[in-house]
Amino acid sequence: MSTAWTSRYAQRTKNVRSSAIRELLKITQNPEIISFAGGLPAPDVFPVERFREACAKVLDKQAKLALQYSASEGYEPLREMIARHTSRYGIKAKPEHVLITSGSQQALDLIGKLLINSGDRVLVEAPTYLGALQAFNVYGAEYLCVPSDNDGLRTDLLEGPLRSGPKFMYVLPNFQNPGGTTLAEGRRHELVLLADRYGIPIVEDDPYGQLRYEGEHLPPLVVLDRENLRRDDGYSIGNVIYLSTFSKTLSPGLRLGWIVAPPDVISKLIQLRQAADLHTSTFGQMVAYEVARDGFLDEHIKLIRRVYGERRNVMLEALEEFCPPEVTWTRPMGGLFLWVTLPEGMNCNELFKAALKQNVAFVAGDCFYAGNGYAKEGLRHLRLNFSNAKPEQIREGIRRLATAIKDQWRQLHPGYDRPVDQHVFD
Amino acid sequence: MSTAWTSRYAQRTKNVRSSAIRELLKITQNPEIISFAGGLPAPDVFPVERFREACAKVLDKQAKLALQYSASEGYEPLREMIARHTSRYGIKAKPEHVLITSGSQQALDLIGKLLINSGDRVLVEAPTYLGALQAFNVYGAEYLCVPSDNDGLRTDLLEGPLRSGPKFMYVLPNFQNPGGTTLAEGRRHELVLLADRYGIPIVEDDPYGQLRYEGEHLPPLVVLDRENLRRDDGYSIGNVIYLSTFSKTLSPGLRLGWIVAPPDVISKLIQLRQAADLHTSTFGQMVAYEVARDGFLDEHIKLIRRVYGERRNVMLEALEEFCPPEVTWTRPMGGLFLWVTLPEGMNCNELFKAALKQNVAFVAGDCFYAGNGYAKEGLRHLRLNFSNAKPEQIREGIRRLATAIKDQWRQLHPGYDRPVDQHVFD
Repeated sequence: MSTAWTSRYAQRTKNVRSSAIRELLKITQNPEIISFAGGLPAPDVFPVERFREACAKVLDKQAKLALQYSASEGYEPLREMIARHTSRYGIKAKPEHVLITSGSQQALDLIGKLLINSGDRVLVEAPTYLGALQAFNVYGAEYLCVPSDNDGLRTDLLEGPLRSGPKFMYVLPNFQNPGGTTLAEGRRHELVLLADRYGIPIVEDDPYGQLRYEGEHLPPLVVLDRENLRRDDGYSIGNVIYLSTFSKTLSPGLRLGWIVAPPDVISKLIQLRQAADLHTSTFGQMVAYEVARDGFLDEHIKLIRRVYGERRNVMLEALEEFCPPEVTWTRPMGGLFLWVTLPEGMNCNELFKAALKQNVAFVAGDCFYAGNGYAKEGLRHLRLNFSNAKPEQIREGIRRLATAIKDQWRQLHPGYDRPVDQHVFD
Repeated sequence: MSTAWTSRYAQRTKNVRSSAIRELLKITQNPEIISFAGGLPAPDVFPVERFREACAKVLDKQAKLALQYSASEGYEPLREMIARHTSRYGIKAKPEHVLITSGSQQALDLIGKLLINSGDRVLVEAPTYLGALQAFNVYGAEYLCVPSDNDGLRTDLLEGPLRSGPKFMYVLPNFQNPGGTTLAEGRRHELVLLADRYGIPIVEDDPYGQLRYEGEHLPPLVVLDRENLRRDDGYSIGNVIYLSTFSKTLSPGLRLGWIVAPPDVISKLIQLRQAADLHTSTFGQMVAYEVARDGFLDEHIKLIRRVYGERRNVMLEALEEFCPPEVTWTRPMGGLFLWVTLPEGMNCNELFKAALKQNVAFVAGDCFYAGNGYAKEGLRHLRLNFSNAKPEQIREGIRRLATAIKDQWRQLHPGYDRPVDQHVFD
């Protein structure tokens, strides 16, 4: 007889399901479909020529190093570059504060591994990033959900949940995924003070911080925390673990992210990382370093801002033009996503099926909520990505989506017999 | 106040320590030191020119795919290649049996995540691969250790441990790390029959199987198990999860390994993998595929066999020439390592310090034993790698090691006053 494999699975596998988004990616590979589903960067902005030069250079000059095993903490020049780069925003990291990871997802996994005992509660925004929930679920996390509004996490609602003792808070302050909202400056200060007061650390996830299309850069929580703690060495990091990534600025296919944390935390994460996969591709790290160096990354980010900023505008204008006034959406100042709210009674999963028939896809909102308390709320939302499709596709995709929304509404209200052009939605 | 981070660490972190070997790698970067410590391939056999062509080709023809997110299960042509390649040895895998991982270490981590509840016992060889212990420790594994001899795992001692109900067996049948031993064919049959009889699955780790320098290829456990179960579709895999890697044949720096398992197990592993780091570098996978394809990998493995086979011979000859007869060692038919046994009373950790003074390094044997029952046994062993250093360095390194061994012996026996050249060791 063959092994009864499923009966041998560990308890933690019960918390693990396939990501709705990654399953969606397969459906949306159909070229007929205009997809607003994934968080995919635009492939037309990948700096291919620069990658070509970088690969040639690494293999010409350092091939024996690039193809060999290397340190679990990461390629030292890349750590130094990230520390310098991070310091520009006031974080003042040194290389020993930096761990290179295989994308932000690995950073989330390692943080879950480091901090979460089964049953520990993590305080998250409602809605929050699905990938973080997936990473934490593996370790048996439970959740305390705090609502957010257009200014991000409702810090006025934080004290109750904080007093019930979460292991840490997980927050995405800039151009949140999925909400597209940005945590207001005043709330950032409040959040950091509350974290300090209750002794509850913050995991600050910042994949999109550099992709701002309007308004002023706001200080990261890790910087405000340092100022609040008045650490005199200027380097120490107190209550915040900070994450970022090259996935949205250089290439997600390389799988390169990083964690900035106190050196003791980094040391423990390195041990977990050794056990998990030894290290990120040496070659990939060296190539990314060669691509990013000498100011190239900064210049490239300017290009991305221009391209994505335009796409965001096109999507906002198309929503305005095609959607009925009962549908609302956030107006992100950066990042890759906006968040649509449907009229009460509509169901994003039903709409998803209708939208696929119109050859347009999105991610249904309910998967971005931890726990069951928000099941009904989640059904009223969709996440739309505006970085991947080209402007003319975005306009056409939103037109199709609006058609699907109107069709859904008619199905829900079959007695509703006004002509379509006088519909409540028009 | 800053967060008391260590008090927030999860219980599982108590089982995690830094790898002695990875710490060693730092010491042994000193160019004065001849290191037999790491399991590093020889950088002089890396196929650099082929990598250069592969990078150029991928970036010329498929850059937008290579730099983008991709499927968690791996790059499809690479999965197909691995399935074909694996099938040559009788495993008859299809792509849906294959999951690409970021090196074998990630495969071990994912298997630990999939199968181990805290307190579950894993049956391992004594000694066994340190990296597997590290991966399983994170999930709270305990161990049932079964001794091995020159023919590998002592299958005659298996029934008792099997009856006490391990979650799975972890076995390295070919050129074992650290022992350098190969599981004899008769024992392979016995092992597979016992696994079936007790319903305990096997994790077969085979990083070195293709690096055989003498003797005939022996059938993998996964093949014998399939034959034993007489599955008529010719594809099904029953009680064995099989792992391998490109680390020892193409490049460890790329971090590319794979798992072959029943499709249901692969599906669950893919879900865990999504949560862990989404996927292995798309670019890295595509480059590896371009490097390996069209028979190049087979040709390249012939070169590696020649180079490493010669190095193994040089090390065996040098041990014979320089070491006293009280020291013994295994004679591996392939792989990267051999295993030295010191005379009773000697301590490999003390010897390690003495060896470093002679500018030669190895890995002390005690870290390859799970649990405490083997603490004393472990101290009598060293693992020596023969793939990384060049032949002239190997000879010189063994000469230095023999000097350190003789010095240690003199320190242990200070009254021992015969002239050195009449020493018991000479």
